[in-house]
Amino acid sequence: MNFEHLRALSAVVEEGTFEAAADRLHISPSAVSQRIKALENAEGQIMVRRGAPCTPTEPGAVLLRMARQVQLLESEARHTLAGGSSTRATTPVAVNADSLATWFLPVLSDAAGWTDSTLDLHVEDQDHSARLLRSGDVIAAVTAEPAPVNGCRVQPLGAMRYLPVATPELRERFTGAGGIDWEAMPVVRFNAKDELQRRFLRVRGTTGDPPRHTVPSSEAFLAAVRAGLGWGMLPELQLGTDLDDGALVLLDGRAHEDVLLYWQAWKLDSERLERIGASVRRAARHLR
Amino acid sequence: MNFEHLRALSAVVEEGTFEAAADRLHISPSAVSQRIKALENAEGQIMVRRGAPCTPTEPGAVLLRMARQVQLLESEARHTLAGGSSTRATTPVAVNADSLATWFLPVLSDAAGWTDSTLDLHVEDQDHSARLLRSGDVIAAVTAEPAPVNGCRVQPLGAMRYLPVATPELRERFTGAGGIDWEAMPVVRFNAKDELQRRFLRVRGTTGDPPRHTVPSSEAFLAAVRAGLGWGMLPELQLGTDLDDGALVLLDGRAHEDVLLYWQAWKLDSERLERIGASVRRAARHLR
Repeated sequence: MNFEHLRALSAVVEEGTFEAAADRLHISPSAVSQRIKALENAEGQIMVRRGAPCTPTEPGAVLLRMARQVQLLESEARHTLAGGSSTRATTPVAVNADSLATWFLPVLSDAAGWTDSTLDLHVEDQDHSARLLRSGDVIAAVTAEPAPVNGCRVQPLGAMRYLPVATPELRERFTGAGGIDWEAMPVVRFNAKDELQRRFLRVRGTTGDPPRHTVPSSEAFLAAVRAGLGWGMLPELQLGTDLDDGALVLLDGRAHEDVLLYWQAWKLDSERLERIGASVRRAARHLR
Repeated sequence: MNFEHLRALSAVVEEGTFEAAADRLHISPSAVSQRIKALENAEGQIMVRRGAPCTPTEPGAVLLRMARQVQLLESEARHTLAGGSSTRATTPVAVNADSLATWFLPVLSDAAGWTDSTLDLHVEDQDHSARLLRSGDVIAAVTAEPAPVNGCRVQPLGAMRYLPVATPELRERFTGAGGIDWEAMPVVRFNAKDELQRRFLRVRGTTGDPPRHTVPSSEAFLAAVRAGLGWGMLPELQLGTDLDDGALVLLDGRAHEDVLLYWQAWKLDSERLERIGASVRRAARHLR
């Protein structure tokens, strides 16, 4: 297999178009196209779905993953040979939105000190990050999925605790003689896949369908709950002083939901992968 | 056309599965399936791509948009008839990430006071939000696209100003006798489509390829720049006191990029659409 062809494949998929890939590789778009075609002819399979953006086919994804592993190893070898003066390698990593909004941030500070690599973060939920690991789009992921993705090793990071909170005004407005009216009090969810609020209601035997707002950003979700739009299950780590200073109140002092998080990373003897893994585990000490 | 069938269509697409749609409509999954099939038989076209999640086909998207317009009008009529005691209508709106992280937040507070509707926010970039408007997935959008989407009216909201900033340490490290070494100083971008940094470099005649980190969250992007991971074009509105207290410095006192934002909304005589439009325009007074 030809290294140049593999490099063209990953550039096309990472940049999305043949033109942008050409820009990055400092060659012409037609040279990029020739390399992809050469790769496809050699393997007898289509590797890239030409579209906006370009995406890998299933066989393309297999090669892509291999290409990225090779690139990582190659750039580490080159870095060692050059005594640290070579170009940087990209480190693509998936992380869920709530982690990126809270305990993951120190990893960014650590990465600021790494002169041999750049961070390429993908914000994805669990299901998606397993797919990204399999396809080679990322080399590691913070995920709630404990079952190792094929070719990856898994390490537990700890639990992210979610608490049911609202503004005191909202709780007041929906509290009657029988306690909180869970069927009437509006709820905020992150997106259609966010089951945390629904699960909490189901455990309490609420069968109705409370008004439901959707706010798909961790920070805006907190802002929405603070603004009194509805109640929500919020990461303990994100609440700061909100509970102490009374901006938000706990709706149930004993209820919480713990989401266990894991670090899934390619089984690859790579210094960079080791280093980011160590940084993530250090940052994860804030988890339970 | 049958209202119940249309309602089943939008529930399946919004919830993603027949089971979740059944849950929401308080009917059985097989009843949902029968309604979708009846709709497909009546129109002679497949309306839903059965998958995980279920998505509308092209004809399905046409019906979906109509279904949502009908639902909005129907629920407003019902609300008026019932004197304000009916169930809430969903208001699906697209907004770009940087707006949601900054000037859009007061809309959430306004929405907390609306008892007849719930907010369903979609965080999307420009290209995608035009598609969402066309398909009827959203009824309005904050977007950088000035050309009206078919069936929508457009109002200018103002400009979001982006400034090139970095930590003083990063600037120091990459400043030599000839000024800032733009080809060597690492840069942070939001995602592959984020051209703001690249455009800034191109205008200055930088031809090289500086190390590039990717951080696809508005808040984490700011955190990354604050951590010294790289420089970036940041919304003026997001900087707070960072420039005054010296946490970040301007890399070029005169350079900035203004992104004009627009409110695109369905042409529909709807009180709710009017109201959220007014709230968005009020919040947009913080734009330039």
